[in-house]
Amino acid sequence: MSRRPLQLATDGWSVEIIDQTRLPHELVVQRLGTLDAVVEAIGTMQVRGAPLIGITAGYGLCLALMTDDSDAGLADAVQALLATRPTAVNLAHVVGRVRDAARAEIRGRRTAAAYRAVAALAELEVSACRAIGDHGLPLLEAIARRRPGPVRVLTHCNAGWLATLEHGTALAPVYRAHGNGVPVEVWVDETRPRSQGWLTAWELGGAGIPHTVVADGMAAHLLQREQVDLVLVGTDRTTRAGDVCNKIGTYGVALAAAAAKVPFYAAVPSTSIDWALTDWKTIPIEERSADEVRLVRGRDQEGHLRTVRPGPEDSQVRNAAFDVTPARLVTGLITERGICRATRRGLLGLFPEQQR
Amino acid sequence: MSRRPLQLATDGWSVEIIDQTRLPHELVVQRLGTLDAVVEAIGTMQVRGAPLIGITAGYGLCLALMTDDSDAGLADAVQALLATRPTAVNLAHVVGRVRDAARAEIRGRRTAAAYRAVAALAELEVSACRAIGDHGLPLLEAIARRRPGPVRVLTHCNAGWLATLEHGTALAPVYRAHGNGVPVEVWVDETRPRSQGWLTAWELGGAGIPHTVVADGMAAHLLQREQVDLVLVGTDRTTRAGDVCNKIGTYGVALAAAAAKVPFYAAVPSTSIDWALTDWKTIPIEERSADEVRLVRGRDQEGHLRTVRPGPEDSQVRNAAFDVTPARLVTGLITERGICRATRRGLLGLFPEQQR
Repeated sequence: MSRRPLQLATDGWSVEIIDQTRLPHELVVQRLGTLDAVVEAIGTMQVRGAPLIGITAGYGLCLALMTDDSDAGLADAVQALLATRPTAVNLAHVVGRVRDAARAEIRGRRTAAAYRAVAALAELEVSACRAIGDHGLPLLEAIARRRPGPVRVLTHCNAGWLATLEHGTALAPVYRAHGNGVPVEVWVDETRPRSQGWLTAWELGGAGIPHTVVADGMAAHLLQREQVDLVLVGTDRTTRAGDVCNKIGTYGVALAAAAAKVPFYAAVPSTSIDWALTDWKTIPIEERSADEVRLVRGRDQEGHLRTVRPGPEDSQVRNAAFDVTPARLVTGLITERGICRATRRGLLGLFPEQQR
Repeated sequence: MSRRPLQLATDGWSVEIIDQTRLPHELVVQRLGTLDAVVEAIGTMQVRGAPLIGITAGYGLCLALMTDDSDAGLADAVQALLATRPTAVNLAHVVGRVRDAARAEIRGRRTAAAYRAVAALAELEVSACRAIGDHGLPLLEAIARRRPGPVRVLTHCNAGWLATLEHGTALAPVYRAHGNGVPVEVWVDETRPRSQGWLTAWELGGAGIPHTVVADGMAAHLLQREQVDLVLVGTDRTTRAGDVCNKIGTYGVALAAAAAKVPFYAAVPSTSIDWALTDWKTIPIEERSADEVRLVRGRDQEGHLRTVRPGPEDSQVRNAAFDVTPARLVTGLITERGICRATRRGLLGLFPEQQR
């Protein structure tokens, strides 16, 4: 895929996103020209994935500054962006950095400074994902050396290039291994309620990587029956203690991996680390619309996109979008600076500047 | 609900089933008049649930005997029924009992003997479910005494009256508690791929029992966050050692319950116990069609029932229909003779006649 899921339009100021709510059925590029459009795109998950929503929000701030670069305008825009999605820390991280870059300039120069800051952060994100692929590769190579046949990776949700800008986080080592000739097969959790597993299947299919989609309930069974060599997931927020907040269902996969003694790694660009957080119970867990559980969208037999409701009309639904995998269940964290144990000490070993 | 999901038609020989593939959208009763129709209904899961498919298969044998009550005809029919679904042991159990009842008679009397045998087994099944409700009730009462607010039960799949004839297995204690004025709320796992959670929601809604449907990945999160007091599930086959084979995803729920120290009980009519089996790894796990994962059926906005495909056309899918929860994760088994620990000794304490 040569197109990123988000890129600057040729006008040099608006952004073009791949509308991920239309995938895997249609590849639709949508232009976002206002803060409101960005807020909407993040909230409805037209863009999704912690690293990607961070960069998208950064551009949202740029677009806001184009119409009002006052301190008040900047503060309002920051507020609106932070309110879109509470769990992924990348969003707050990028918005904070871009705000600081803008505020360091006088009015009239703020917009350009913000665009420069986002562009730089975007390239840092891409290089972090590339480095995660490099550091994760030896994990897969070691398995390939140990036993014949393809390395069997299980992943939950989508942490591929669609969720970042390039390479992905959890999928970066998979792409890297495949590119290096290491045979890989991926078990893809469907990942209800939004079924982002189909996005992962679409990505992997495009890259020619063998993969098999399974219902979420089957992941533990596959681990129990020794069908998985390695679990790789992304993260929306990782505490300084190494606890991994990620898409709902990840914690259950981690429990099953631990029971089966299969290594469970999270791919963690440092933008996903919340250095201020020690107690994972304080991470805000976003509750999303019941309709994400109640309704399913797909193509019917005639090829039309339709939304259907498989259940009764009136059932109550709860829809927490994330869960937390405590550090004790995490074998290691793959960061852009290398792999470390999921502990405070492990993370500080790689990021000593975060020592307080 | 006054209608059972399976009952003899007024003609006295054919059977009427509620077509569960049409629920929760339409209550359609279908008449089955031949062995082939019964084989089809079981295979396509128009009837489902271990106890119910057992009784349905028993009637299938009766229908076969009506056209051919020779030894060969009987053997062929047994064969066809056993081949429908391999995992639930109830089917083999009932078919074996009805076959024996028929074979004990001379030709010409076999059909009537078979009908009598199935009717008796059906009433035994109903009374077993009723007794499971009675024996499970104190578990819920004890929780209600311990803390204010409703007792929060989590269940996976559908083990209600739709899966049996009346009362249900896992839901029997819930219905019993609700009837006794014990406040109960049920977390209902959606239970992909067939989403039988919506059947449970439909049942509970009909009974006026508060319930909330969640994506399967959310069950572990609810357990971790202390939102569940008790897990109740059914079983398709339980070994003499107390290992519980049930709908795919059950094992993951059990792991999460154990991690949260929440009691995990399986409701086990003795017809679901495979006394011959000690090693759970030898239980045949049915693999069903990939289309169960690929396609979702429901009502569209105009009220039409439609099938849609949420993912790419060409993704490979695996669909194991069951998993096994090892006995060590099972707090107890609720049988028609009382509750026991999930051990060989526990089960033999209640069923001493199974001592070998």
